[in-house]
Amino acid sequence: MSTKRPVAIVFDTFGSVVDWRGTLIAEMTALGHERGIAGDWAGVADAWRVGYHEMLDEVTAGKRQWQKLDIIHRELLERALEAKGVTGFSEADLQHLNLGWHRLKPWPDAVSGINRLKTKYIVGSLSNGNVRLLTDMAKGADLAWDVVLGSDIFQRFKPHPDTYLGAARLLDLEPGELMLASAHNGDLAHARKNGLMTAFFLRPTEYGPDQTIDLTAEQEWDVIADDMEDMAAKLDT
Amino acid sequence: MSTKRPVAIVFDTFGSVVDWRGTLIAEMTALGHERGIAGDWAGVADAWRVGYHEMLDEVTAGKRQWQKLDIIHRELLERALEAKGVTGFSEADLQHLNLGWHRLKPWPDAVSGINRLKTKYIVGSLSNGNVRLLTDMAKGADLAWDVVLGSDIFQRFKPHPDTYLGAARLLDLEPGELMLASAHNGDLAHARKNGLMTAFFLRPTEYGPDQTIDLTAEQEWDVIADDMEDMAAKLDT
Repeated sequence: MSTKRPVAIVFDTFGSVVDWRGTLIAEMTALGHERGIAGDWAGVADAWRVGYHEMLDEVTAGKRQWQKLDIIHRELLERALEAKGVTGFSEADLQHLNLGWHRLKPWPDAVSGINRLKTKYIVGSLSNGNVRLLTDMAKGADLAWDVVLGSDIFQRFKPHPDTYLGAARLLDLEPGELMLASAHNGDLAHARKNGLMTAFFLRPTEYGPDQTIDLTAEQEWDVIADDMEDMAAKLDT
Repeated sequence: MSTKRPVAIVFDTFGSVVDWRGTLIAEMTALGHERGIAGDWAGVADAWRVGYHEMLDEVTAGKRQWQKLDIIHRELLERALEAKGVTGFSEADLQHLNLGWHRLKPWPDAVSGINRLKTKYIVGSLSNGNVRLLTDMAKGADLAWDVVLGSDIFQRFKPHPDTYLGAARLLDLEPGELMLASAHNGDLAHARKNGLMTAFFLRPTEYGPDQTIDLTAEQEWDVIADDMEDMAAKLDT
């Protein structure tokens, strides 16, 4: 555990701060019930997220241009529904479901963890979500960010260096004065390569009960915590 | 008064939300006292701000490149001190005084006005300050912005259209769904030219007791209010 302290902490959001899978399953279950449409909603949510990772890999590999995440999510939602054989949602329903990413619910320790860390550090989001998505999410989930850094500010997705270093630039910090906090070892590895400090915390059910990845810290991150409350304690707040 | 309502409201900050003149005079007075340096601190603050307006006019006219406001402020501080015959501050003192813009204090109705408006609208800053300056200011003054839009995101200063329209783009809004709130008629006139809604409120002592400008609404703005509390009431919050 590092004794050095950052000036600012930026958080990965999807899966780290908010529970995308649980929220999306609940929203699709509710709307499906209302419309009389049955479906494997956990399967749709997982396919939606797998599609996201595949598409972002294409952007990272230079095979696809950066686009606002809302647009990518919409395309992937239609693919996920088709893959799982779900039909019957109207255009308005699809728009509503797609905006489910704007309404993701926080993990139980997220709001209090942010509020504690905020007393001593600048806290913000650093997400592949766009600014409006992150702003809606923060309002809905009571995430008291000091600053919202969406991928449309940089026109890049993580893990492009422009995102990590762009956050440092906008916050007027050396990379080593900025900490990325995430439940994802991969995200942290890229942040570290770019000189940022790193905090890992566990989200052992982000991908459901049978999760096999990110169940342990894969490097000696500057902070390794059980959750965001524990992280706040380990950073003296 | 318009009956139409925006989705989001972005605020001009210097003079509109925070009292730059009162705060800077108090900070310079305190540091001058500590260092045994006398000066016409109101005169220095006014010269500093006049320099800012002149330099931004040069940027607007294309005679000068956009630069981070912290850098511009530093250059102008030295000019203002020289113009008023103040000498004796160390490099560390000058850096501290320059960061006074990060520590500006809110007008008495600002915090409560933002908190009321935040219950119904996305609220943010749209300022010529840079993101770090605005983030520090918000933390110090308890301004609970949902989103912080600094000029370094757009690499432009107001009144360049990229700032007003860039805010709408990041918030995924048509210009007519976004409102600029400001105590400055000029700022509002540019926002309106770019299609934004407008809210004017009074800051009759922003420039000191002898203020002659912005003492009245110069157009039929969508909202015209006495202060930010009154604005919140007129926008149904």
